[in-house]
Amino acid sequence: MEPSDINLATILEARGRIRKFVVNTPLKPSFELGRRTAARVFLKLENMQATGSFKIRGAANAILKLAETDGAAGVVAASSGNHGRAVAYVAQQLGIASTICMTHLVPEDKIRGIEEFGADVVLHGDDQNQAVEMALRIAEERDYRLIPPFDDALIISGQGTIGLEILEQMPDIEALVVPVSGGGLMSGIATAARAIRANVEIIGVTTRYDAAIYESIRAGRLTMVGERPSIADALPGPIPLDNRYTFRICRELVDEIVPVADEAIARAMRYAIDHEKVVLEGAGAIGIAWLLETGSNWRGRKVAVVCSGNNVSRERLDSIFSQFELA
Amino acid sequence: MEPSDINLATILEARGRIRKFVVNTPLKPSFELGRRTAARVFLKLENMQATGSFKIRGAANAILKLAETDGAAGVVAASSGNHGRAVAYVAQQLGIASTICMTHLVPEDKIRGIEEFGADVVLHGDDQNQAVEMALRIAEERDYRLIPPFDDALIISGQGTIGLEILEQMPDIEALVVPVSGGGLMSGIATAARAIRANVEIIGVTTRYDAAIYESIRAGRLTMVGERPSIADALPGPIPLDNRYTFRICRELVDEIVPVADEAIARAMRYAIDHEKVVLEGAGAIGIAWLLETGSNWRGRKVAVVCSGNNVSRERLDSIFSQFELA
Repeated sequence: MEPSDINLATILEARGRIRKFVVNTPLKPSFELGRRTAARVFLKLENMQATGSFKIRGAANAILKLAETDGAAGVVAASSGNHGRAVAYVAQQLGIASTICMTHLVPEDKIRGIEEFGADVVLHGDDQNQAVEMALRIAEERDYRLIPPFDDALIISGQGTIGLEILEQMPDIEALVVPVSGGGLMSGIATAARAIRANVEIIGVTTRYDAAIYESIRAGRLTMVGERPSIADALPGPIPLDNRYTFRICRELVDEIVPVADEAIARAMRYAIDHEKVVLEGAGAIGIAWLLETGSNWRGRKVAVVCSGNNVSRERLDSIFSQFELA
Repeated sequence: MEPSDINLATILEARGRIRKFVVNTPLKPSFELGRRTAARVFLKLENMQATGSFKIRGAANAILKLAETDGAAGVVAASSGNHGRAVAYVAQQLGIASTICMTHLVPEDKIRGIEEFGADVVLHGDDQNQAVEMALRIAEERDYRLIPPFDDALIISGQGTIGLEILEQMPDIEALVVPVSGGGLMSGIATAARAIRANVEIIGVTTRYDAAIYESIRAGRLTMVGERPSIADALPGPIPLDNRYTFRICRELVDEIVPVADEAIARAMRYAIDHEKVVLEGAGAIGIAWLLETGSNWRGRKVAVVCSGNNVSRERLDSIFSQFELA
């Protein structure tokens, strides 16, 4: 498939398809961030989706498209996080069987969080590659369709509906701040936003270490990274070197990707509870972290920050806040 | 004015009027409450409105209607809480002057929270009646229009848009759980819901002491109450005995109003952060408190709970949680 698989038309098509499953989330003014930056700041609250993250958009687009066409026996994904929850939830809503593969290292509460959506959870191996291999094997054995986490035209088009919504909600927005991991969310949003408002500034935010798309763009080619732990645990980690879409789209459409330190992310999580009255996971708060770090650089501008998800337990929050003395 | 001032037509009219100012908030499934009650539970997240509460709906309806017709020189309200914030915000958006009257007892952070929307704050006296008198005086002196907090056809019709949205989002909903103080929110929602789905069950939730509408319905006539402090500080307190709408509408349309103890409200606030990943003020969490208290009584039903607002500081949350050993 060519990049023409992903454009404003495929994103509009996705929106029509997923409408019944996905919340058109508020673009909420943040009065406190406005004061601290002397800018007009709006938060795109994807933490308000049913499963607590934007991932439901791409998953719904991929699974509904499948249901429209060949109707596989079921769907399978390798993810213990927001993508796994989203695939399981959408499949359950549609009455389709789902299997989610994870490593043996995944904590019990994350497993339960996916089983509650009726998914069959299969634990295999102790690194993510082994979980992916198991997912591929199940896809073949059970005639299930693999739902990839980010590098897929339907997934990216689904995430792109966030860009459509922001530009509808605030047509004269000047800058977008979007978390970047594998680049699916960013590729979708950037495609929609550039098509509608060519000169909008698009800033990616990611972790300081092992941020695959960030390192790849710096190096000018797809680059392997490790997976050092971060407070924003959804962001670091390698992406397959046969990447088809996200590296190319991010390199072409994103103005800049900036790394953010763990302490700033922790402060933003604390800030989100105290001032925005929402719990955000690290990746969900990283855009706020960047605005708090850069403050008055934003003076006079109109900026939207994508808050991607809220998948963090109280125990983990407490441990993060005590690590940085923010409790 | 007669009760025919408030019906499905006035609520639909309100919706058209306020659309640009108000978020159609998510009706988010609560998987954890679903598990604890064996029911299907959905949260109507009014804490996601720009000013953090549903009050923006009624305020926008009243102020926009004013702007359509005689266009007063400004608006005035007596409220240090969500109503005051909503009136100030809507007026600012429309470029209309606003004055908000409060007592001298209001804490500094609440004053700032209203001044940030460009309102002129006037402090007067040390009980709410004196703040109301000052608001009436300013209305006369400055030719401002008083925006009442609840007992007003435009305010009630504005709040009623929540009922419309719930019935659109979940047409076969079986029960609604709604916080009750002066009854404006409940009157609006009950009017919309009964008109669309006559046999829906409508439950009001309020504080154990000094809940004016609750005590009045029990007594069969408008009843004075005191204002003992509660964790749900938006709920207790007297309402004027010249009440025109809310007592009558609540008595006629609401199936039952139930009082909830402070400790249960505190637990629900803790629950909301831990499991729903949102900060709710006491009044905003009281519906959840009732579901947690009554658990499996809801078995097999489909219920919507209105989470009305998030206007609570970290300091107050910490003090509530430590009072009940929930920190």
